Amino acid sequence: MNGMKPLLLLSNDDGVQAKGLNELIGMLSPLGDILVMAPDGPRSGSACAITSDVPLRYRVLDEKPGLKVCACSGTPTDCVKLALEQEAGRKPDIVVGGINHGDNASVSVHYSGTMGLVLEGCMKGIPSVGLSLCDTAADADFSLAAPYVRAVVQRVLDGGLPSGVCLNVNFPKASAGGYRGLKVCRMARGTWSAEWFETLHPRGRKYFWLTGAFQNLEPESADTDSWALANGYVSVVPIGIDMTAYQAMDGLKSLEDL
Amino acid sequence: MNGMKPLLLLSNDDGVQAKGLNELIGMLSPLGDILVMAPDGPRSGSACAITSDVPLRYRVLDEKPGLKVCACSGTPTDCVKLALEQEAGRKPDIVVGGINHGDNASVSVHYSGTMGLVLEGCMKGIPSVGLSLCDTAADADFSLAAPYVRAVVQRVLDGGLPSGVCLNVNFPKASAGGYRGLKVCRMARGTWSAEWFETLHPRGRKYFWLTGAFQNLEPESADTDSWALANGYVSVVPIGIDMTAYQAMDGLKSLEDL
Repeated sequence: MNGMKPLLLLSNDDGVQAKGLNELIGMLSPLGDILVMAPDGPRSGSACAITSDVPLRYRVLDEKPGLKVCACSGTPTDCVKLALEQEAGRKPDIVVGGINHGDNASVSVHYSGTMGLVLEGCMKGIPSVGLSLCDTAADADFSLAAPYVRAVVQRVLDGGLPSGVCLNVNFPKASAGGYRGLKVCRMARGTWSAEWFETLHPRGRKYFWLTGAFQNLEPESADTDSWALANGYVSVVPIGIDMTAYQAMDGLKSLEDL
Repeated sequence: MNGMKPLLLLSNDDGVQAKGLNELIGMLSPLGDILVMAPDGPRSGSACAITSDVPLRYRVLDEKPGLKVCACSGTPTDCVKLALEQEAGRKPDIVVGGINHGDNASVSVHYSGTMGLVLEGCMKGIPSVGLSLCDTAADADFSLAAPYVRAVVQRVLDGGLPSGVCLNVNFPKASAGGYRGLKVCRMARGTWSAEWFETLHPRGRKYFWLTGAFQNLEPESADTDSWALANGYVSVVPIGIDMTAYQAMDGLKSLEDL
């Protein structure tokens, strides 16, 4: 790696072969040296999970000037931890997750392996950005996202992010009309329901597939990510690693009398 | 289940056999009917991970008046989702996670399967409390925690919690002096480093075990959970499911000009 250029650490949760990651490499190659440490297969819904019960391994899939690609047996968060200590050589200038096949807006940030790896970068003091497209297809069209991806990443490389804050960027599914612009939003209040699809094992025992429907609990709130996406905007939500609900502290003080 | 009593849904990330969960059942049995849906083995570090690539199953291990215990093949978050739709019959009055063998203070809340299941309960609109002891031993001593556990859970059953807020309760390791009391705190700023232990496969390839050392980045801050635990107090941190970093939104508005 050339120490003069910015170092961009990329990972995802769809696996190293995913189109979204490979398109991202192409979009960001002009901005600096790229190190990819991504899971060796799909890890959707990994959240910030870490692997403590089995050892991990990784292998180098590709290495050429300005680009090194590694595949790891762990979770997205493991990938960032492993890349930082074993491969990066120096502190990356940015961690970028994605581009995820499927949206990570509203409460889905809690389940997302893409945002898990982005939170890990943020906890390590590195400006970090998660990118997701509202299209789960393996051959999803990421072309409309490209100029926004490059501009947001360049802006973060130039100006950084506040300490303890990372970005959750979601793109509407590509459509003929293009995107209407970009909106800085808050997480919508939402919930998942009807989450299980029951099926029977050939010998009669019940099995359950996780599925479910997302419900936006405040569909009229135009300052939320879910609203922005439903209305053709790219959403950007600043996400904090300090999850303390400060507004609830006074009301809990009476617990100290227990 | 007797519909007249409160219904308490319990789970953990150490698995259904763990001492911490079984001690918790004993502590909370006087407060209502108990439904346990816990992983069938250890799931430490699961965060809010969900299982979408394989179907899940669960079996009933024990059933008697006031108590039903189920073991599930999924993550802690899966357990809560499955219990709510398949076993609870009605909305539980509280979700309680733990008691975890090992602390979940500061940024460890992001990796914790205990807090993952608690966040899931919170996202489903149920008052939810996570309990962790700063002692990873399989035979850890939970006795000093018992009166606090009962009092906090009773308080939450009686008064609820603000919408979108759950509790992260951590207990110091048991010592002869007992606990000094309970403190309502914020999450300490902290970080993990030196996270990998390298080992060699018999045929020569490198493998990596996740390990690491936690560093409290603000050890003098007496309003944090890490300080409370280091000084003999039980820590209670209100945790919000809205991770929006509102204080960062104005500074990002210029992104909308991209």
